[in-house]
Amino acid sequence: MNNTDYKVADISLAELGRKQIEIAEKEMPGLMAIRDKHAVEKPLKGVNIMGSLHMTVQTAVLIETLTALGANVRWASCNIFSTQDEAAAAIAKAGIPVFAWKGETLEEYWWCTERALDFSDEKYSKEGLPGAAERSLGPQMIVDDGGDATMMIHKGVEIEKEPSLLEKDYTRESTEMQIFMKKLKEAYEAHPTRWQEVAKQVKGVSEETTTGVHRLYQLHKEGKLLFPAINVNDSVTKSKFDNVYGCRHSIIDGLNRAMDVMIGGKTAVVCGYGDVGKGCAQALAGQGARVIVTEIDPICALQAMMEGYEVTTVEDTLGRADIYVTATGNTDIITLDHMKKMKDQAIVCNIG
Amino acid sequence: MNNTDYKVADISLAELGRKQIEIAEKEMPGLMAIRDKHAVEKPLKGVNIMGSLHMTVQTAVLIETLTALGANVRWASCNIFSTQDEAAAAIAKAGIPVFAWKGETLEEYWWCTERALDFSDEKYSKEGLPGAAERSLGPQMIVDDGGDATMMIHKGVEIEKEPSLLEKDYTRESTEMQIFMKKLKEAYEAHPTRWQEVAKQVKGVSEETTTGVHRLYQLHKEGKLLFPAINVNDSVTKSKFDNVYGCRHSIIDGLNRAMDVMIGGKTAVVCGYGDVGKGCAQALAGQGARVIVTEIDPICALQAMMEGYEVTTVEDTLGRADIYVTATGNTDIITLDHMKKMKDQAIVCNIG
Amino acid sequence: MNNTDYKVADISLAELGRKQIEIAEKEMPGLMAIRDKHAVEKPLKGVNIMGSLHMTVQTAVLIETLTALGANVRWASCNIFSTQDEAAAAIAKAGIPVFAWKGETLEEYWWCTERALDFSDEKYSKEGLPGAAERSLGPQMIVDDGGDATMMIHKGVEIEKEPSLLEKDYTRESTEMQIFMKKLKEAYEAHPTRWQEVAKQVKGVSEETTTGVHRLYQLHKEGKLLFPAINVNDSVTKSKFDNVYGCRHSIIDGLNRAMDVMIGGKTAVVCGYGDVGKGCAQALAGQGARVIVTEIDPICALQAMMEGYEVTTVEDTLGRADIYVTATGNTDIITLDHMKKMKDQAIVCNIG
Amino acid sequence: MNNTDYKVADISLAELGRKQIEIAEKEMPGLMAIRDKHAVEKPLKGVNIMGSLHMTVQTAVLIETLTALGANVRWASCNIFSTQDEAAAAIAKAGIPVFAWKGETLEEYWWCTERALDFSDEKYSKEGLPGAAERSLGPQMIVDDGGDATMMIHKGVEIEKEPSLLEKDYTRESTEMQIFMKKLKEAYEAHPTRWQEVAKQVKGVSEETTTGVHRLYQLHKEGKLLFPAINVNDSVTKSKFDNVYGCRHSIIDGLNRAMDVMIGGKTAVVCGYGDVGKGCAQALAGQGARVIVTEIDPICALQAMMEGYEVTTVEDTLGRADIYVTATGNTDIITLDHMKKMKDQAIVCNIG
Repeated sequence: MNNTDYKVADISLAELGRKQIEIAEKEMPGLMAIRDKHAVEKPLKGVNIMGSLHMTVQTAVLIETLTALGANVRWASCNIFSTQDEAAAAIAKAGIPVFAWKGETLEEYWWCTERALDFSDEKYSKEGLPGAAERSLGPQMIVDDGGDATMMIHKGVEIEKEPSLLEKDYTRESTEMQIFMKKLKEAYEAHPTRWQEVAKQVKGVSEETTTGVHRLYQLHKEGKLLFPAINVNDSVTKSKFDNVYGCRHSIIDGLNRAMDVMIGGKTAVVCGYGDVGKGCAQALAGQGARVIVTEIDPICALQAMMEGYEVTTVEDTLGRADIYVTATGNTDIITLDHMKKMKDQAIVCNIG
Repeated sequence: MNNTDYKVADISLAELGRKQIEIAEKEMPGLMAIRDKHAVEKPLKGVNIMGSLHMTVQTAVLIETLTALGANVRWASCNIFSTQDEAAAAIAKAGIPVFAWKGETLEEYWWCTERALDFSDEKYSKEGLPGAAERSLGPQMIVDDGGDATMMIHKGVEIEKEPSLLEKDYTRESTEMQIFMKKLKEAYEAHPTRWQEVAKQVKGVSEETTTGVHRLYQLHKEGKLLFPAINVNDSVTKSKFDNVYGCRHSIIDGLNRAMDVMIGGKTAVVCGYGDVGKGCAQALAGQGARVIVTEIDPICALQAMMEGYEVTTVEDTLGRADIYVTATGNTDIITLDHMKKMKDQAIVCNIG
Repeated sequence: MNNTDYKVADISLAELGRKQIEIAEKEMPGLMAIRDKHAVEKPLKGVNIMGSLHMTVQTAVLIETLTALGANVRWASCNIFSTQDEAAAAIAKAGIPVFAWKGETLEEYWWCTERALDFSDEKYSKEGLPGAAERSLGPQMIVDDGGDATMMIHKGVEIEKEPSLLEKDYTRESTEMQIFMKKLKEAYEAHPTRWQEVAKQVKGVSEETTTGVHRLYQLHKEGKLLFPAINVNDSVTKSKFDNVYGCRHSIIDGLNRAMDVMIGGKTAVVCGYGDVGKGCAQALAGQGARVIVTEIDPICALQAMMEGYEVTTVEDTLGRADIYVTATGNTDIITLDHMKKMKDQAIVCNIG
Repeated sequence: MNNTDYKVADISLAELGRKQIEIAEKEMPGLMAIRDKHAVEKPLKGVNIMGSLHMTVQTAVLIETLTALGANVRWASCNIFSTQDEAAAAIAKAGIPVFAWKGETLEEYWWCTERALDFSDEKYSKEGLPGAAERSLGPQMIVDDGGDATMMIHKGVEIEKEPSLLEKDYTRESTEMQIFMKKLKEAYEAHPTRWQEVAKQVKGVSEETTTGVHRLYQLHKEGKLLFPAINVNDSVTKSKFDNVYGCRHSIIDGLNRAMDVMIGGKTAVVCGYGDVGKGCAQALAGQGARVIVTEIDPICALQAMMEGYEVTTVEDTLGRADIYVTATGNTDIITLDHMKKMKDQAIVCNIG
């Protein structure tokens, strides 16, 4: 390992992170069974895998499963706040290049993503896929959560084919877009064919989110998708478990840590009664909240009624509800105008 | 057995009743354990026990437990509609004097109660309590449910001491009161000291209902209670089990049999969140109803809120609720005026 | 109306049935909205519709909706026990040919089905579909629930093309098969091309059950399906509502009416955690039963675990469970051998 | 204010604490209503109140309510770990003497308690109760949670009457007892009649815990209770709300913060089904855990069964449960021997 090939908040947290990883391993028997089954055979030997996914303790177990199966892994988080610094430290300490810390700036975020996509280091060229004629600059596989790694490559290729895109005026675009284009400009100047080389070598990307999958379908429809994509988001083990039960867990945990108010006896409005909303409503009711559901899909609205929840509009709840949880995947569910009519100290949060 | 010392709807139902009793015995391990423990010793040998309690299959198991322990039992129902005719038939067939059928008139009801209180038959005098100097005209023990047997004895004694009560004008009293006084008049004419003799021999009465217990406390306060009374109603196994879980069962069963409409998805108002209301609310929620609670006790109202139910007034629910369940033990919870403002086909029922 | 063109248990029940139908109409706003919207236009004017579906109060609302839209309807039940005689009487009284009563023999059952399929009466020929060149012997549309009407037509056609089928030895087949073939033989002898004429005129059948749909897919695969079929069974409003919430209602109702034992505190095993099993488990838990689930599908088994149910095998529950509910749609879930090891008085039932 | 008359972890946390206090005020309408009603009249004017109760944000609202009503308040925590340092800082900043921080040593703990009991400062003597002939050395009222303040005064008085107690050998007693006696020795040497003077001025103590109340009843029985005590613990708003719903909230919050594992799908054993156990079981089930209850009280055990929980012994669950929650108020519920037989990584916690 190149000891400096990582960037984390505090490497001294590695020991704490390792303990948490060991606890998490017991909670993740699926991944551990894969290690048991394939650790000898190493089916991912020499494969470059890049991840853009929350750098948490649980992700650490995934990363170490990939390396146990032989992969060369490089990792960044897909969110500037979600990294557990002790998990990142433990991964770095284990010799796996990781670029993630809690509280990244947007500049840092895209720097991390770019670093994680760069497999140009000598090491990887030696252990390339059997029969590889050339060293692999980037990943052969991407674990994407929100599509940022995929977007960086696609946008990079677009620029390399049409460099004038870099000269456009982005001052009226979002700050993030300006930062993103600046990063791509630097990359283009350093290596004007990098992303085309990288894209050619990618065998596929797996995408976890509704938003990311939506982007991918759009690229595919426009004929611009540069490599195969796997829709993880819509698998039953994601939608009927992660969405329902994962959110059933985290809605309570999140409310407690953020607000420290008792949920029992409060009136909670769950906006959207899809898989995520179903899990949230169950959890809030399980803590003794009175749950009201808002939903525009008639089937889901009927389901909410049949489960005994009041079903109405957001407008109708203003002034009588204490907690609002948006679980729709859409924007403008709760507006400023809504907020002005809410009870004092009403809690508004989003999940999913 | 004197084969004619009973009155039931149809003695040919005895076999069906017996089968149901055998099933119920398995559901009532407490009583069966008492039989096992005491059947040899027969601690109730020769004791006259009268019951005024719903003549159902479950009561049949109680009756036969008392006889297995040696008691002479006579039984009437405490409600003109609640008798299960097959259970009454099986008890009659087993040689136990029972006077009960589904759909008694008020005249018949008080006739049955009087018959069940009459232990003057030869048989009982021979098997009296050890050392009894005289035969027992009436019961030594009463199992009362609503206090009607107790009231008959007390009112009978009052009349025997003040016969002019019989001459009073009862035409402005309820029909039931008029029928009741007529019955007592017949009894007085036949045997002018009967109830005093009976009262003297009663060792005690157990009372199951809030109403019956209330009457007993009042008699006691006025110094008029003629024999000891046991408040069964307020024991924890009654209030926290029969009231909560018995009603949790029967609210659903009753609604289904009476109305045959789906409960799920409906809005149900539970008036009163005491033990009975708690059981009802849980059952209705368990069937997918949206439950609203009305409650005047602040502690119980807070409990309803903490369980996630909307808590409001009956008035506030009119027009938006489908089912009303009164579980307060009081009158005038739902008024005619309320009913006029309810949704078409709203269901109104009472429990407890 | 030809006053004799029906067969029900007791026509004098019509008034009672009508009252129940009027109550049910309020519970079925979907159908009533269709009546409101299309009663003037009568889009089903002159269409012959045959139903083979439980002749209940709710079905009566469906039947009268079809007639309100202009259809000629003839009806039989799809089950020998499920007819509500008051509902059948009300439909007959309303002049709609219905052939159904509670407790049919198998001979009677197939007679009813055949009668409901016979639209040869003068009346229908006059009000045929606009432009119909010939009168319609049978239905243009079938509402099938279990596929019996569809099977009668298909088997009838098969026999007309290959009459020697009638001469085969069916003595080793099920009693029902023998009765069914006898019925078809009579039909063939009376009118040797009847079913071919009927089949030609059928525009389509809707099928409600998993079993019926399965039969239809098989016929289609073998190229033998004689007319289009609509799979109602797999629509979301069936599987996610009727299956889940309908069964949540009827499992409790059925247990109460059949057994009259308290469900709370008992251990109930739900075999199969599909939509039906999910509804049953929720209902039983809502009544205070401890629910154990058996399931061979790993996704559904995991869902049961995530809902907090014990998940194990039927074998593991023998001797400790009080109620068994099979909700799999398969046979041999509970075997004789299982039953021998169950607790005394364990309840075994099937739903779905 | 004497600016140095407090000891907290970090006074700069005061602003953060103030924000949290402002949020909590909205969640505590009862206390705020008392402020509104009595702030002008100030019925506690000049009363010295000492608290030994978790120094949290919610307690801060209580403290400031007491001061708003005119009291002189001094505060310590009743637990070495439970202080929220930002709450303590905000209280100190508001000029109220508070002695509490997260992570006190046992020496520090008893130092804090003693400091909070010392009202000898000049200020208090001037604002004494109307008509007070002498300044009050200690509190007139104590808010105790676990009985430590009460014990300090009682033990102090005992020593003053029998100083030889200080010379006894405590080396075989618990470390805490040794530290406690050392503290009392210092107090005795500084002011040999202090606790007797203090005790004489105490008008009463309110006690919140089962343990504390138990100690008080014992003192009372032995004729040693030096001032009146109010049993807050057994009021319905404590036992049926704080115990049930407070624990329903905090069991989930505590498990999440300490262990960060998903509760859904796990098997959780709740030891004890009193008020605390009832709340825990409901919360765990509401998160999708399978709940098993152990209980020695037959009424509570039956209630657990009637709610659908498996009821068994701790021994029977070893090896198949993931989480153990003791909610009995007793020791030795979970033993080392039990732990040896648990699943790897089983979680063991206590609440109540």
